Amino acid sequence: MLPFARISIIGVGLIGSSLARAIRANMPTVRLTGHDADPAVRDIARRIDLFDDVADSAGAAVTDADIVILCVPVRAMGSVAREIADDLPADAIISDVGSCKAEILASLTAALPGRTIIPAHPVAGTENSGPEAGFATLFNGRWCIMTPPADADPTAVERVAELWRRVGAQVETMDAAHHDLVLAVTSHLPHLIAYTIVGTAGDLESVTRSEVIKYSAGGFRDFTRIAASDPTMWRDVFLSNKDAVLEMLQRFSEDLTALQRAIRWGDGDALFDLFTRTRAIRRSIIDEGQDDPAPDFGRKHV
Amino acid sequence: MLPFARISIIGVGLIGSSLARAIRANMPTVRLTGHDADPAVRDIARRIDLFDDVADSAGAAVTDADIVILCVPVRAMGSVAREIADDLPADAIISDVGSCKAEILASLTAALPGRTIIPAHPVAGTENSGPEAGFATLFNGRWCIMTPPADADPTAVERVAELWRRVGAQVETMDAAHHDLVLAVTSHLPHLIAYTIVGTAGDLESVTRSEVIKYSAGGFRDFTRIAASDPTMWRDVFLSNKDAVLEMLQRFSEDLTALQRAIRWGDGDALFDLFTRTRAIRRSIIDEGQDDPAPDFGRKHV
Repeated sequence: MLPFARISIIGVGLIGSSLARAIRANMPTVRLTGHDADPAVRDIARRIDLFDDVADSAGAAVTDADIVILCVPVRAMGSVAREIADDLPADAIISDVGSCKAEILASLTAALPGRTIIPAHPVAGTENSGPEAGFATLFNGRWCIMTPPADADPTAVERVAELWRRVGAQVETMDAAHHDLVLAVTSHLPHLIAYTIVGTAGDLESVTRSEVIKYSAGGFRDFTRIAASDPTMWRDVFLSNKDAVLEMLQRFSEDLTALQRAIRWGDGDALFDLFTRTRAIRRSIIDEGQDDPAPDFGRKHV
Repeated sequence: MLPFARISIIGVGLIGSSLARAIRANMPTVRLTGHDADPAVRDIARRIDLFDDVADSAGAAVTDADIVILCVPVRAMGSVAREIADDLPADAIISDVGSCKAEILASLTAALPGRTIIPAHPVAGTENSGPEAGFATLFNGRWCIMTPPADADPTAVERVAELWRRVGAQVETMDAAHHDLVLAVTSHLPHLIAYTIVGTAGDLESVTRSEVIKYSAGGFRDFTRIAASDPTMWRDVFLSNKDAVLEMLQRFSEDLTALQRAIRWGDGDALFDLFTRTRAIRRSIIDEGQDDPAPDFGRKHV
């Protein structure tokens, strides 16, 4: 049995459009409605036929929904929730795909008191943005973390979990605060560091930008991928998950200082020990199917 | 005309074995001799037929060479050079593929006074190590930076450049000190940061290692690739290019502190501005053919 017959997606970027495609591919009988605040995005969504119906307002997109999934930047969640409040069917579930669950849960609860709110976060993406960047297999084998409130209806939680399993994800549940700490280290800190180093490299007087680009295959280019991610989405993530990000950043800075000291003092053993330990983590990620086993991420060398 | 008829490669890891394969593929009439200090690596090299001849000592590998290319860790260059000094033909060129040119040039010059030393550095690699990790197309489209001493024989420089062009690389020339500064930012600092963050993430009390691995697709897994690189090679790089690495690390730390402050103070505009600038660098790297244009490095999503 399908978990939902009528699904509305608000926000048609990489994740919203991938979810629409994945639902079409895996549950073709679901009636899909979409809306994006940007009229140009709505036009594209219509042209490439992402939904059965593209509504011109968020309210109109939710009137007959069984579930509404908000796929907008973290700090836009509250206002979108307020926009749909009057049109939302009484028994509809509200969910989202945002990267910072504590703040989102608070803002959705404030905007939609008494409603069934079941937040979720599919840990998947690419550096590309917009309705044409999405693809149906984005969630295959990835984890979707659900952070239902303590008093959430178990049936509603299970229906949302089943939706994510149907589009290829594995589902895990934890509380919002722990989610935000885990994602601070597995996603937010890596993005922050990538943005920083790409900024640093683009802004040196002793090495030209052209040299940085030419010789980027020495390792730097890896960081430019996630540093090309959507600026609005990521600004919101750092503002929203501030405390956890600052905590992880503090830990990282301490470790970086220790390594800096090892280099300054020529402590080769300390360097070698760390460089050996880190190899094992890569191995585990590949063993658990969370990265491509091919060398160099499977980049083409032709 | 072939730049060299008899090429000896000392050190049969990722780069040495890729170079051997690329020479075989592009200049099949070259006589190729190889040597590795590790008998197990020599056995593999023989079994997979990387060379016309695998010599059991470095000296025996160079007796009839037109060029000897040292493909060993940076800090092993000097001792290998001393090992071959007595067997090296008078007119043979010595080259290498190391990542830190100033120290290597000094140690090769000290070990082989009066010889023709033409250092080079192909900016290419994967996270894998050893003779079986290499492949013939590794250098295709990548840059090889040559750092000949000021008084180097131009004909010798051109022959080495032609060798690298024949295996698919583009060639650029600069002085060793500038090379070391450029690579500190495009290669050494990225590796240092990747090693650090993978170490940090593996060593938290609030987030388990299992959680780090499961949710690594949020961005973290990108860093684990280069943090899986060869520990000996990278220990040597950081010890050898200490000053330039510490200088770039200082710049990075200043920028990271500024970003930390922007997060702490909720300065969304500063975050948004940086995140917009960094996108352009990714675009340029792809436009100049230095990374795969496919989303997510071309990782398989199936």
